[in-house]
Amino acid sequence: MKTLMAIGGAINRKNPEVLREFVRRTGGSAARIVILPQASALAKTGKDYANLFLSLGVRSAKVLEYRRRQEAGSKAQVQMLREASGIFITGGNQMRLSALFGGTALEKELQDAYQRGCLIGGTSAGAAILSKVMIAYGKDGPTPRERIVQLAPGLGFTDKFVFDMHFRQRDRLGRLIYSVATNPGILGIGVDEDTAAIIEDDVSVWACGSGGITIVDGSQISSSDVAEIEKGGPVAVSVLNLHVLTKDCCYNRETRAALIPEKVLLTE
Amino acid sequence: MKTLMAIGGAINRKNPEVLREFVRRTGGSAARIVILPQASALAKTGKDYANLFLSLGVRSAKVLEYRRRQEAGSKAQVQMLREASGIFITGGNQMRLSALFGGTALEKELQDAYQRGCLIGGTSAGAAILSKVMIAYGKDGPTPRERIVQLAPGLGFTDKFVFDMHFRQRDRLGRLIYSVATNPGILGIGVDEDTAAIIEDDVSVWACGSGGITIVDGSQISSSDVAEIEKGGPVAVSVLNLHVLTKDCCYNRETRAALIPEKVLLTE
Repeated sequence: MKTLMAIGGAINRKNPEVLREFVRRTGGSAARIVILPQASALAKTGKDYANLFLSLGVRSAKVLEYRRRQEAGSKAQVQMLREASGIFITGGNQMRLSALFGGTALEKELQDAYQRGCLIGGTSAGAAILSKVMIAYGKDGPTPRERIVQLAPGLGFTDKFVFDMHFRQRDRLGRLIYSVATNPGILGIGVDEDTAAIIEDDVSVWACGSGGITIVDGSQISSSDVAEIEKGGPVAVSVLNLHVLTKDCCYNRETRAALIPEKVLLTE
Repeated sequence: MKTLMAIGGAINRKNPEVLREFVRRTGGSAARIVILPQASALAKTGKDYANLFLSLGVRSAKVLEYRRRQEAGSKAQVQMLREASGIFITGGNQMRLSALFGGTALEKELQDAYQRGCLIGGTSAGAAILSKVMIAYGKDGPTPRERIVQLAPGLGFTDKFVFDMHFRQRDRLGRLIYSVATNPGILGIGVDEDTAAIIEDDVSVWACGSGGITIVDGSQISSSDVAEIEKGGPVAVSVLNLHVLTKDCCYNRETRAALIPEKVLLTE
């Protein structure tokens, strides 16, 4: 199975439920995790995550570090990625990731890893980068506006979804709606902090963690002026289908339906 | 025609497009406007709006002021409301309005005015109060959570809608979704600042002003755990229909469809 895990940032370090799920899905104590810290400007980010994963009981957690494009693709780096059961991409600035990995031998190695079943996950910028077209930066607010968002090419593990992180905390519905209205063939997923959207085989979307994920489905849009609005004006769009999902809820991209577990237990 | 006008707060005083629309719909230069300032704790709020309306060319703009419940219902007050072509309710705290008007003779006069075609409009708290069940207060954020919102009885001109104001600016999608999920028979309308939702005969909803209105239609909800979640946990709900409408867009509550004006003009 091919699996992506988009985490909304601000993982609860004291109770990292989303990272436990990452570990569970990458082999538990047998997991071999490689951390890509390039989005972060802090030297210690990679090491911090390695220690966090080791504290969760994995066998191996290594940092693949480099900061110059021409350093991408060494034998040691390739070897690390080929042995990994999970690749974790830290937060920071997603443009650093696309600028450093795009078009290198490592980009191809990452694709190969994904295809063979290595889980690819990331938090914040490391989640944004997972899609073919990613939200690079933008403004906040629930009303979509012209140019509210700037899109850029991501690492492209999926072309079916676009992710936006820190969703509840930074009020990003407007830019996600704008992204979806721009091309309704792409499903928008807004991920709250300390929460993950887990994508299996580009079809099933699971929610995990303490918050919610918001799925914005534009496939039923019948009318929109997104292509005509200028100068940052508000955009009209009708009708969007919205699903708000929490832990253990699942959405199917093919049927466009969500499954919310029954919480009612009738007592006698 | 019966008309309500829910304004999202923060009206642009230099270019009060939404108040011009209020004036246009209440008789233009022949308009007789009565201002209800009770939501505001500032003594000058009523007078400020009266001056603003007079500067827009209306014949009459009077403030109906009182601050003790037992003062509600004097002959002079009743006379003012009976002569009004438009009643404007200022912002502040919507609980002050329900506490001062609820169950008084003036509440009945307001209902009578609405039934005979007097436009009832308000901004911020003055808009929240228009519905039978109103959002009294709550927390912000796009993810619905248990108890994210406290509902209270409003003045009840409509039982088909619930309004939430400062929508884009204060990130209130979560509490509006929660309100709608609680009772999907009620249509949620989030109104941006300096923007109005105009409701005609409880069916047509027009957008007016510089921002957008967000319509949350819960009639297609097939699954939700809103009744079971406890302790402020996030609520799951699927599927909501969302419409984001801007100036001159119109939504019909009966057909559940929106009309977005065509902006494309093909040139030869």
